[in-house]
Amino acid sequence: MDRVAVIGASMTKFGQRDVWIRELLSQAAEECLDDADVAPDEIEHLYVSNMASGEFEGQGGVPNLLAHDIGAIPAYTERIDQTSSSGGAGVYAAWRSIASGASDMTLLVGGEKMTHKTTAEATDIIASITHPAEYKHGLTLPSFAGMTARRYLHKYDAPRESLAKVAVKNHKNGVDNPNAQFQKEIDVETALDSPIVADPLRLYDFCPITDGSAALLFVPESVAEEYADEYAVISGIGGATDTHVVHERDDPTVMNGVVDSGEEAYEMAGLGPEDIEVAELHDMFTILEFLQMEGLGFAEQGEAWKEMDRGTTERDGELPINTSGGLKSKGHPLGASGVAQAVEIYEQMVGEAGPRQVDADVGLTCNVGGFGNCVITAIMEAAE
Amino acid sequence: MDRVAVIGASMTKFGQRDVWIRELLSQAAEECLDDADVAPDEIEHLYVSNMASGEFEGQGGVPNLLAHDIGAIPAYTERIDQTSSSGGAGVYAAWRSIASGASDMTLLVGGEKMTHKTTAEATDIIASITHPAEYKHGLTLPSFAGMTARRYLHKYDAPRESLAKVAVKNHKNGVDNPNAQFQKEIDVETALDSPIVADPLRLYDFCPITDGSAALLFVPESVAEEYADEYAVISGIGGATDTHVVHERDDPTVMNGVVDSGEEAYEMAGLGPEDIEVAELHDMFTILEFLQMEGLGFAEQGEAWKEMDRGTTERDGELPINTSGGLKSKGHPLGASGVAQAVEIYEQMVGEAGPRQVDADVGLTCNVGGFGNCVITAIMEAAE
Repeated sequence: MDRVAVIGASMTKFGQRDVWIRELLSQAAEECLDDADVAPDEIEHLYVSNMASGEFEGQGGVPNLLAHDIGAIPAYTERIDQTSSSGGAGVYAAWRSIASGASDMTLLVGGEKMTHKTTAEATDIIASITHPAEYKHGLTLPSFAGMTARRYLHKYDAPRESLAKVAVKNHKNGVDNPNAQFQKEIDVETALDSPIVADPLRLYDFCPITDGSAALLFVPESVAEEYADEYAVISGIGGATDTHVVHERDDPTVMNGVVDSGEEAYEMAGLGPEDIEVAELHDMFTILEFLQMEGLGFAEQGEAWKEMDRGTTERDGELPINTSGGLKSKGHPLGASGVAQAVEIYEQMVGEAGPRQVDADVGLTCNVGGFGNCVITAIMEAAE
Repeated sequence: MDRVAVIGASMTKFGQRDVWIRELLSQAAEECLDDADVAPDEIEHLYVSNMASGEFEGQGGVPNLLAHDIGAIPAYTERIDQTSSSGGAGVYAAWRSIASGASDMTLLVGGEKMTHKTTAEATDIIASITHPAEYKHGLTLPSFAGMTARRYLHKYDAPRESLAKVAVKNHKNGVDNPNAQFQKEIDVETALDSPIVADPLRLYDFCPITDGSAALLFVPESVAEEYADEYAVISGIGGATDTHVVHERDDPTVMNGVVDSGEEAYEMAGLGPEDIEVAELHDMFTILEFLQMEGLGFAEQGEAWKEMDRGTTERDGELPINTSGGLKSKGHPLGASGVAQAVEIYEQMVGEAGPRQVDADVGLTCNVGGFGNCVITAIMEAAE
């Protein structure tokens, strides 16, 4: 079968942006088309990953608006929402559009505009995706993260510092990403001394609230060389859900959605965890980087934290994780994040990651929705 | 290529329902699985067509909630929003999931809960999908319909009664649909004497605000017979956008999205308008039935209204349109409508339409988002 190729990518500056979702999406879309030297009227399908433009700014119909603004009409459009994994879901939707033969040129744009809301308002919009019974009790995603981190540290006898080291590493990587929200190194002490948000997690264990957008352009591999000397292929992809009520899970330190989507992606690619050379994981909370490392087979259950002292996941380590800076320092504009993860891996595959470049021909992205309620894992390879 | 088959369908009672989106989706999903005798854990992909559960009831993450409620975890889930054509977009997404090989068992559920809002509140949520410049001037979808109807009647010298006759026909068909919001015949005088909403259109030219849900189950055709003696295949499908700013269109009486998506669907199916034996068109406003008949080639430009006196589109006519009662009498729960259109055609194809049954082996659905901003057309055929 003809594989699905990625021939262009872009991301806007992430952070506090004084423009609306409309401008954010257009900017990423136009830069992505420029990157691949493709005209807007060549687009056949246009997917927009966006969780909540209606709730955040009262604007619906953003895919149509985007098609209009960039001159892509009559391209078919659709909005993909899978909460915080909307971006990964968009990658999967774009993959299916090409693999099914429905489109030969698909533009995916993910974006969210959030910072005009207060932290409390944004947290409430995000919490609306939890189970109604959990929402009613005031459970938010940060509170789940706090409880899970406490359980993890206790069960696996892991030091609190190991979580801080995730934040330190990802902040360090973000310094070299000009589009990251934060380009600021921090140290373990700063992370450990920051204000408590959901005990034992503190401010620096959390990603910020962010505005931003990212885009990718997909074609069948058989025509990829017409557009690009260097390109990447998505060789494996899968998605899976876990219980929507978090307390129904047997072990809160295991994210079944990560395990299941990872197995699906590995099987499709004919690869295993040992073949992955760089990965972008969904570090919305520091603890999630450990859960994904374990769920994807990069570490034994309960042992991911040990890799922090070994430096395994540093940019110059054996398996660099979140070379982009991760959600932690790059920021987390909900619908954009999964797309931006794939943008980073694409840039690593085609040698365009600049100072963040690592030596890798196979990369992985893991995008987590809710608190592991839905997960999409994708494997990208540099074209031979 | 293995075609995409539909092996089961369901719809809930449409109307004012005293349950939330969660219950509506679950009901349709469970009845659809029962219809095909498929267990929830056989589902691989689960798509939810829903425009605005966040705006209507502050509930996000409905696909995960649905997967949880019906026992479909770890099925992959996604929410598809393409405004009022979200249901058709869901049919297209489900088609791509099977055609791409990503899933061998896809459940699509479309639904919306709207009636707890006032008409003004609901109209405002819907108007948020228009272009910001149009929204700012107070333009809503009903006002576009009024202007378009006035232009159509003037340009083609069509009598006002022809629009009323669309409403009369679709109300008559709805009488035999136990799940329709209205099961009440009306006459031309009642329609013409009803209160003005957007001159020249009156109350009976508009679909109501509705709660409801509908579902379809898809598999590759190669395995369809394992599940069903009678099934249907989607032999053609396409989607297209038109300008997001309605006034930029050359001719407001032509919906380019209808024309373009129709051509794509006909080409894939290897069929033309003359082959279609029954159709569900998006009669959110009576005038839209004429625009779609013309855009899809069922009538010459400006002549669809003449078919009303000929009875062509009556249930016993040459090309029955909206045998379900259409959006007009069945109701229009945004995300559900495109799915419910396909449910009606599926039931016609497999001979399960009861008193509404017509003699047809090829059917078509046309689902319109915004004011023709995005359109999905699909052709379904009875399996040989």
